[in-house]
Amino acid sequence: MATLKELEDSSDGTIVPLEEILGQMKFNEAGLIPAIAQDHVSKDVLMLAWMDRAAIKKTLEEGYVTYFSRSRQSYWKKGETSGHVQRLVQMSFDCDGDAILIEVEQTGSACHTMRKTCFYLKVNGLKVSISDTT
Amino acid sequence: MATLKELEDSSDGTIVPLEEILGQMKFNEAGLIPAIAQDHVSKDVLMLAWMDRAAIKKTLEEGYVTYFSRSRQSYWKKGETSGHVQRLVQMSFDCDGDAILIEVEQTGSACHTMRKTCFYLKVNGLKVSISDTT
Repeated sequence: MATLKELEDSSDGTIVPLEEILGQMKFNEAGLIPAIAQDHVSKDVLMLAWMDRAAIKKTLEEGYVTYFSRSRQSYWKKGETSGHVQRLVQMSFDCDGDAILIEVEQTGSACHTMRKTCFYLKVNGLKVSISDTT
Repeated sequence: MATLKELEDSSDGTIVPLEEILGQMKFNEAGLIPAIAQDHVSKDVLMLAWMDRAAIKKTLEEGYVTYFSRSRQSYWKKGETSGHVQRLVQMSFDCDGDAILIEVEQTGSACHTMRKTCFYLKVNGLKVSISDTT
């Protein structure tokens, strides 16, 4: 089995089984890993949420993103109540297996405030301004 | 003081002091918060690392990104040894104050493997392929 460290030196196009990578992902003490959702067209970073191994598998199987909600301690299929679903376009893992990037096709707003993205608090010097412009 | 919850209903252009927002950020039990670095030109997501309150302040003051390394338990000015610095273009916080987005001008490679981004492990069905193409 190739370790993530060994794969660092692998050339583009190298292919390994998903299970081998999942087995090396660094989940935290709660079994979670941060997942970044990015709009695959605008490339805006939409939000950061958390996944456990089951949420990763469910997302890959269904083709729509499911997170694990830390506040509710339950699975959270994004958009299940709001309709603002995220269709999975590409899931990627980082070099040391402690973060996930999920490129998605976002229906409606990613943020529960109805803004395009959750990152609307923009630092300008010693002030923060509310801005949904990306 | 406006809470993050109250700010959800604020209109674009609302301005609040940085200190008020920093005081409401949700640092984890180790005092850290995940920070996503994004290339401000290509909009590629480059990496995810962690910051504490001092790293946030240092980054804002110096205009270059400093993270807190969990493995080394020390501040890590990105590129200090490699030269692959990240000039801060825009820092943003998310709606509930538990994630940071840092748009940067990246010098050289963001990833220590010399790839453009750290997210080069791409899931394709039940396989993962190494690909630095974004």
